[in-house]
Amino acid sequence: MKRKITLKQIARELDVSISTVSKALSNSKEISEDTTQKIQAFAKLYNYRPNNIALSLKNRKTKTIGILIPEIVHHFFSTVIRGIERVANRRGYNVIVGLSNESFTKEIINMELLANGSIDGFILSISKETLLKQDYHHFNAAINQGMPIVMFDRVVNEVDCDKVIVDDFVGAVKAVNKLVEKGSKNIALITTFDYVSVGRLRTQGYLEALEQNNINANPNLILKIDDSLDVENHLEILENEIDLFFKANPKIDGVFAVNELYAVTAMKVAKKLGFSIPDDIQVIGFTDGVLSKHATPSLTTVSQHGQKIGEQAANLLIDRLEAVDVETEQYFTNNDTKKDFIKVVIETEIIERESTK
Amino acid sequence: MKRKITLKQIARELDVSISTVSKALSNSKEISEDTTQKIQAFAKLYNYRPNNIALSLKNRKTKTIGILIPEIVHHFFSTVIRGIERVANRRGYNVIVGLSNESFTKEIINMELLANGSIDGFILSISKETLLKQDYHHFNAAINQGMPIVMFDRVVNEVDCDKVIVDDFVGAVKAVNKLVEKGSKNIALITTFDYVSVGRLRTQGYLEALEQNNINANPNLILKIDDSLDVENHLEILENEIDLFFKANPKIDGVFAVNELYAVTAMKVAKKLGFSIPDDIQVIGFTDGVLSKHATPSLTTVSQHGQKIGEQAANLLIDRLEAVDVETEQYFTNNDTKKDFIKVVIETEIIERESTK
Repeated sequence: MKRKITLKQIARELDVSISTVSKALSNSKEISEDTTQKIQAFAKLYNYRPNNIALSLKNRKTKTIGILIPEIVHHFFSTVIRGIERVANRRGYNVIVGLSNESFTKEIINMELLANGSIDGFILSISKETLLKQDYHHFNAAINQGMPIVMFDRVVNEVDCDKVIVDDFVGAVKAVNKLVEKGSKNIALITTFDYVSVGRLRTQGYLEALEQNNINANPNLILKIDDSLDVENHLEILENEIDLFFKANPKIDGVFAVNELYAVTAMKVAKKLGFSIPDDIQVIGFTDGVLSKHATPSLTTVSQHGQKIGEQAANLLIDRLEAVDVETEQYFTNNDTKKDFIKVVIETEIIERESTK
Repeated sequence: MKRKITLKQIARELDVSISTVSKALSNSKEISEDTTQKIQAFAKLYNYRPNNIALSLKNRKTKTIGILIPEIVHHFFSTVIRGIERVANRRGYNVIVGLSNESFTKEIINMELLANGSIDGFILSISKETLLKQDYHHFNAAINQGMPIVMFDRVVNEVDCDKVIVDDFVGAVKAVNKLVEKGSKNIALITTFDYVSVGRLRTQGYLEALEQNNINANPNLILKIDDSLDVENHLEILENEIDLFFKANPKIDGVFAVNELYAVTAMKVAKKLGFSIPDDIQVIGFTDGVLSKHATPSLTTVSQHGQKIGEQAANLLIDRLEAVDVETEQYFTNNDTKKDFIKVVIETEIIERESTK
């Protein structure tokens, strides 16, 4: 069997970006008619076949789920995968994992690679770069070609598919309310820049909780970290930023951090500055990973239930895949079933440990 | 294109195990001639095609590497993947990850799935169950069919391929010598049962270091944990075992633990029992993960350089894949190139932190 040409090869031959090729092949209006024609002609000449698997549904049972995540060294994503695996194994499916490394182009390449007859459907979380670009044509193209997608955690309204999300907003509200209830008056937020929706929602939750408690938000008490840095290898930068932040705002007596690394680092810096936790400063993080459990003091945190997210996502996808056979041999049409897509919201839970009173 | 039948389907139809099918198709002597004939006839009838990709080397450039690891919620494996990715991206390759979940059967299924035209070669670490069974036919079958494999960390002599290993033995010797040098007299070992070679090597290193220092090994000072339990979710069991161990051996003034979870848990239990670290008990772990860095006190540990392991493995595999084209169009034969396989030993390094004097 001759291997078909890939998007990457077409892009290289015609000296355009992979994204342009991908868009031209799905007839995107963003690409000029000229370019579209050239790319489509080239693709045809070299036998490029899009993943039009819907055309032959009967033959496409691979019983394999493709998972596409932004990063692997990340406790949350690995617990989600564990949840997907648990359900997949029980229901007779296998999983393959692709990594976008937060890159738009790698996301497209990985989707093409996996969709290439290896898998029945995707469970994915969108890369940061894709969210920045707000370019979702590759997801829609896959769906239009009959490849179901379930998105989790980082999802967007622009793609119609099943979604499993965490109530980041409510989780943040709960965390800040807990700090207020336990006596904190000057509550700081340590967060990321806003382009990933979960970061934005957690920031909004922080502001909402302050308002609910009639506390005026103070912009000086919000520290935004540039997480495009690979923070794990730049712990010192993170520690310095937090150190300066605490020194500039000596009244801080509560910290809500949008991930556990920021929370644990905040505790470490606060202790070095002579503060006692939780007596002087209470700290709550987000994500219940190994750091939270093993920190000293152990960290009170908002658990996202990663495993439950994975289990739900797998059940949604497999339900959709298996609905195909018994009904119409087509699992949905593009027009009339928007209403059928399900959005599951997984509730967060505050796990109280030693970093709060 | 009609999808070919899979090992799993053949096994189900003929009511035999996947492993039996896999062995029969690679003409293993372990399977009776009768069974082998039946399975081969069935496979032929249903158009099963083994991954005889070597037959058409020119067409097999997927520029994708298949990674097969035992577990994903594991900092060491994720840093290895990060290293593989870094080199793969630089050299124009993509990666796909499959998970064996420490299961022999899942390892076989995943290899079949990935080898099925999606990838050019494997980088893998063997599952615990496979090591227990000592059954490596699936690796040898893949290699015989022209699919190169690079093994890392958990490797075996029975498979001839490139390997990247950590000097677990020397790492353990160094760690225990460090404890002796810093004044510990009664050094305990917290380890796993011995069926995974790395655990055995670390235990041997502990014994060797004691001998080098003329200290008699005391079997009571060796605690073996059953790591077939999912320890992360059974922290209490682990804490209890270590608690009893310390109480039964009050003279312990040094601990070498074969992973960071055991080391960090030992510190936690010791502190609860009123010991001061490092003054009363010094602790050294193995694997430099997030727990080691963020523990209080921070943990002195043996770093395995996971990222470097991944980088080396990726370079070995890609070198072999790319050697094919320029030379003989066959990257090696089964007989005459044993000597060509490379075993890279990555040196460990002790990272000294607060848990030693």
